[in-house]
Amino acid sequence: MKNFIAKSQSAQEYECGYSCDNALLLKIDGGLFFITDGRYGLEAKERSKNCEVIEGNDIFSQARRLLRKSGIKTLTIDPLEFTYGDYRAFQNKLTHIHLHTAANFHQKIRSVKKEAEIEKIKTATIENKEAFDRFADFLSKVGLDKTEAELHYAAKGFLEQKGTRKLSFDPIFAIGENAAKPHALPTDKRLKIGSTVLFDAGTKYESYCSDRTRTALFHESGIAFGTEQRFSDSTQQTIYDLALKAHDTAIESARAGMKAAELDLIARKVIENGGYGEFFTHSLGHGVGLDIHEEPFINKRNNLTLQNGMVFTIEPGIYIPNEFGVRIEDIVVLKNNRAEIL
Amino acid sequence: MKNFIAKSQSAQEYECGYSCDNALLLKIDGGLFFITDGRYGLEAKERSKNCEVIEGNDIFSQARRLLRKSGIKTLTIDPLEFTYGDYRAFQNKLTHIHLHTAANFHQKIRSVKKEAEIEKIKTATIENKEAFDRFADFLSKVGLDKTEAELHYAAKGFLEQKGTRKLSFDPIFAIGENAAKPHALPTDKRLKIGSTVLFDAGTKYESYCSDRTRTALFHESGIAFGTEQRFSDSTQQTIYDLALKAHDTAIESARAGMKAAELDLIARKVIENGGYGEFFTHSLGHGVGLDIHEEPFINKRNNLTLQNGMVFTIEPGIYIPNEFGVRIEDIVVLKNNRAEIL
Repeated sequence: MKNFIAKSQSAQEYECGYSCDNALLLKIDGGLFFITDGRYGLEAKERSKNCEVIEGNDIFSQARRLLRKSGIKTLTIDPLEFTYGDYRAFQNKLTHIHLHTAANFHQKIRSVKKEAEIEKIKTATIENKEAFDRFADFLSKVGLDKTEAELHYAAKGFLEQKGTRKLSFDPIFAIGENAAKPHALPTDKRLKIGSTVLFDAGTKYESYCSDRTRTALFHESGIAFGTEQRFSDSTQQTIYDLALKAHDTAIESARAGMKAAELDLIARKVIENGGYGEFFTHSLGHGVGLDIHEEPFINKRNNLTLQNGMVFTIEPGIYIPNEFGVRIEDIVVLKNNRAEIL
Repeated sequence: MKNFIAKSQSAQEYECGYSCDNALLLKIDGGLFFITDGRYGLEAKERSKNCEVIEGNDIFSQARRLLRKSGIKTLTIDPLEFTYGDYRAFQNKLTHIHLHTAANFHQKIRSVKKEAEIEKIKTATIENKEAFDRFADFLSKVGLDKTEAELHYAAKGFLEQKGTRKLSFDPIFAIGENAAKPHALPTDKRLKIGSTVLFDAGTKYESYCSDRTRTALFHESGIAFGTEQRFSDSTQQTIYDLALKAHDTAIESARAGMKAAELDLIARKVIENGGYGEFFTHSLGHGVGLDIHEEPFINKRNNLTLQNGMVFTIEPGIYIPNEFGVRIEDIVVLKNNRAEIL
């Protein structure tokens, strides 16, 4: 991409190693400008790399000034990154430059990860898994009879490690039938022996995200977040085993050169053949990097070709309203044409 | 506003008492529709009020279906709420309806608060102030020699109260010259006797935000977040007193019927007359409600007329790069033509 304008914090982090919530990134003729306002200028100058920091109250007018000076003719912009109002105002005052719209173009630039990026996601994943294990230990020892809301807050403590780790997203902790809502808010429902638990959480390492979901039963002896689970209810066991089969099949089947949509369909077929197709109500997965949700989106409409170096989740789920929900999620990287769990 | 489409979570909360991160709110001919996807449908049906919940994977196409059925001719939309891509795709398939763009129209609907809303913001403000006091007590007793990052995390604990309170925003805790960056990230700088501290934080009560900033000196006896502060450095005292004078003058001068810009200029004049005008680098304040930043924006460009029932911050700041920063912030409500601190 020769010339572009971007504003997401992930694009800022990727290009300059620093980000804030009001900045434009302008790449023109090989030069990179980080345009921000007075609140962030000082910090941007201290912390950013590979770019020239420009400070001004109106960051769009600063961008136009640089563009006019450059004399370039075409600028790539992501139509999903700018509001309609900002886009129109920016375009109206830029009469000599053609804006080329390309959805998610910067996520696509970032979708094939460098080795150092994969290492960061792996470190985030290891730290996240450790937090899952510490949390399972806590649940087993003192979780009984506590509410979803209390345990959701406790989970954040294990993930954040006294604020030394950022969360990739607000974790989901759902008990029993609340897990049938894939993005449930925590309630005052209490953890009991025999409760099923769905826990979806991720922490960041050097701005790179991790993401993991486990569904588990709370036994007399406590709970563990391994993928091997025994349920007392045989229907629950059938549903769990089917979701796990879809998860494993997708990971074994993933290949570089395959379309994202093909991989989604492989997992979907497993669940459909098991008779629960209508209860797998979301897509199979999503890319993970500086954004928690980014390209490659693994859904039945995405024609993007999967490539070595891409990192994404595999997370089939089956949700029976008001009864039970299962999701099992891991992050994989495509390497030597195969998917490897991070 | 007769017919509109909106998507912010604050608009959802205001109209339906429930919100999620993928929904459209459609008001047509007096009917209100909450359109969301399968992940949230069940919860939306249980928790929302005053609306009909419509579930579908493509929320924009569901909105178009309802619009075609309604036969309405004009629909109001906020150009700052929708991405350029979403707006264009939505518009392209809606040939018989005129989209009337109105920036922040829903924030404007909400800008004059009802008594019950003011009570919620007041409760949030009282709870927030209590957290400031508990945090000051903690700092005084065991804060010495701890880092900004550690104290930032500790502050969140006092604000969140074991997860029972949501934050209005990620708090700012800055020591010494780091306070000269109005939105500083926490570092490993340590709290010492004689350190100046800037603390900006807010918690929510029933989805309504609070927001408060104090600048204070850490004495041998500890720290307190009152507005009365003694600094050992006389220049710091001068700067602090000037910011406080601007804060007090703005609150005393605010009247219903005044333009937002006029009020900004009154405070700005105080700081300019004191010789520090160039170091007051942001606007005087912003409305507070379901959004932490909403109309009325108190800046020198906003021609909006202030009205009784409006709730907004007064937060002048003076920032001397690499040396010192002061900001003093309270929330006021306009009542009987005067500003009253909440």
